[in-house]
Amino acid sequence: MLLLIPGPVTTRPEVRAALNVDLAPWDNDFRDFYTNLRGHVLRVAHGVPGEHTALPLQGCGHFVTEAALRTFIPPGGKVLVPATGPYADRMIRLAREAGRVPVTLPIPPTEPTDPVAVAAALAADPTLTHVGQVYSETGSGVVHDVPAIGAAVRAAGRRLIVDAVSAFGALPLDLSAQPEIDTVVFTANKCLEALPGVAFAVARVDRLEACAGNAGSWSFDLSDLHAHSLRTAGSRFTPPAQILAALDRALDFYDAEGGQPARLARYTANTRTFYDGIRGLGLTPYLDRRHQGPIIVNVHAPADPAWDLQAFVDALKARGILISNFYNTPMPTFRVGCIGAITPADMARAVDAMDHALREIGINKREAA
Amino acid sequence: MLLLIPGPVTTRPEVRAALNVDLAPWDNDFRDFYTNLRGHVLRVAHGVPGEHTALPLQGCGHFVTEAALRTFIPPGGKVLVPATGPYADRMIRLAREAGRVPVTLPIPPTEPTDPVAVAAALAADPTLTHVGQVYSETGSGVVHDVPAIGAAVRAAGRRLIVDAVSAFGALPLDLSAQPEIDTVVFTANKCLEALPGVAFAVARVDRLEACAGNAGSWSFDLSDLHAHSLRTAGSRFTPPAQILAALDRALDFYDAEGGQPARLARYTANTRTFYDGIRGLGLTPYLDRRHQGPIIVNVHAPADPAWDLQAFVDALKARGILISNFYNTPMPTFRVGCIGAITPADMARAVDAMDHALREIGINKREAA
Repeated sequence: MLLLIPGPVTTRPEVRAALNVDLAPWDNDFRDFYTNLRGHVLRVAHGVPGEHTALPLQGCGHFVTEAALRTFIPPGGKVLVPATGPYADRMIRLAREAGRVPVTLPIPPTEPTDPVAVAAALAADPTLTHVGQVYSETGSGVVHDVPAIGAAVRAAGRRLIVDAVSAFGALPLDLSAQPEIDTVVFTANKCLEALPGVAFAVARVDRLEACAGNAGSWSFDLSDLHAHSLRTAGSRFTPPAQILAALDRALDFYDAEGGQPARLARYTANTRTFYDGIRGLGLTPYLDRRHQGPIIVNVHAPADPAWDLQAFVDALKARGILISNFYNTPMPTFRVGCIGAITPADMARAVDAMDHALREIGINKREAA
Repeated sequence: MLLLIPGPVTTRPEVRAALNVDLAPWDNDFRDFYTNLRGHVLRVAHGVPGEHTALPLQGCGHFVTEAALRTFIPPGGKVLVPATGPYADRMIRLAREAGRVPVTLPIPPTEPTDPVAVAAALAADPTLTHVGQVYSETGSGVVHDVPAIGAAVRAAGRRLIVDAVSAFGALPLDLSAQPEIDTVVFTANKCLEALPGVAFAVARVDRLEACAGNAGSWSFDLSDLHAHSLRTAGSRFTPPAQILAALDRALDFYDAEGGQPARLARYTANTRTFYDGIRGLGLTPYLDRRHQGPIIVNVHAPADPAWDLQAFVDALKARGILISNFYNTPMPTFRVGCIGAITPADMARAVDAMDHALREIGINKREAA
């Protein structure tokens, strides 16, 4: 079964096999493993040792995003969030419920965030201390220009929090060149091709230390997590040890493949195969080619009155292809991930399966409604 | 390697093997699996369907404890916490950092919480809305009488939050008989003999609904998690799907063994073998036999000046026995878990390994310092 949902992703058997071990998280051997894993993640982010630190947090992307907002933005603090789609909405809700004040910057759902608009919004409101930016909006498939947005934030003397959940490891990221980034957050189960259960914040040490006391939550206090890591090499709280072991194995494959450039090249090829393939089937991609990122592709629901998303999902599943069974865009589109331990041949198989599935459920009119 | 740390625990190979699968958390098949798993956990807690609900939360015991405190106690609300040891201290810190007001009830570290003292403390302060009680204090090994404490809480018209992290599944718990319990929280990786990465709150539905809006954290809002579960059968946020699959397998073994009574009987036998065994070696248990719970045993550090905890841990590890390498009691004691997929024969092996390890590191004087 190919998981194109688009995350958790299809993983390598060797990565899943690494789960099959009992582990003692405060054993000295595990402490060494844990330290090495954190260092490995830091290198992927191009963090500077001593200047940045990689902090694993148990749980999912929502959790680490909330932890970032709580840690770096004080209670009542204001954060500008370009409204890229559902994952920006997530950040907005997490900030609001945590007692921070999100300010929305409207963005057309099919286009990238305009750095000029970010600069203008920051200039207009000096009480905005932060920008919260989604790197790859999983809801739409649009990739936002984090270096350019970061430059606008830096020029305005503000700080940036990057949600890189569906970007990290595949899209370029160089923390050493973006000092305005307080933290970038992500999970193990997207472009790193490991399993769900752990998230990471790679963050600036000076900012972690300056922000002690902000969080209002021991669990989500990244400053405390950092302080703990200085006192002891082990995990704070019980970690999902097997999930970390699998991530470590996945990072070996990441390096062996050639790291971020190679992963981006493979995902780009996956996406091209799929994008061209579904156009060949008469389906309509949600995004213009120039705005189509290499992580997920949304496809307009066919105009045919027989269209039924769940029936389509079921027909694909019977052919070994799993996609999401819900809509995530303003108009009905189905979304398909191009990430995971998969190749263009797999994406070609997915296109072929879609052709057969559409016939099976009686869709004749395939273009957008 | 036997993990006696005392959790994460030694698991069955079949439970770990269940991790080895790619899973799509919002697929309809997974929704059915997820619903069944929640129902299974509810039955273990003797929850009443419709009156109680089992809510999985990504992460660790700290996270679900914070979620419980945030959800059921409003900001500024007061909770009485009997100071049973490090895990009560954890609850106190989680409450305080979340803006709740913990009030400590002093308890001798080697004795159970006195329900009369709880009743007196509640009578003395009518602004205490809740009691936060650790069921099995992993720091000391003392089991606290949750039914008796609950009766005192109920009589006082207050509410109870139970930290059952190292108790759930082994110690008796009947939510249907304790309506004063808002929630009991625990993780998969202790007495349920599964892997770390997911926690649970089994909670009263009426209280979840009454407490909407308290949490001040979307991630840790159990009311929202419950509301989500009414709207859709799937997980809120990405779950650690493989960890849930392993828990499901572990619950099959739990039922096959005979459920809670059988598990308690095995752990009790494990503990008796170990407690008697180390006394036979000349070591001194931390607790009187009458206060010794069936989950973990603390043992006084030997008085011998050659004593070195890490050297002892390393010597044991070389013999296939892993214990914690830190102290968790007011005076130095090493702690040994009696839980997990282990038997009295394993505990006898641990005792034998300790005998050899003590000789190897040159301990002659074994009684307490």
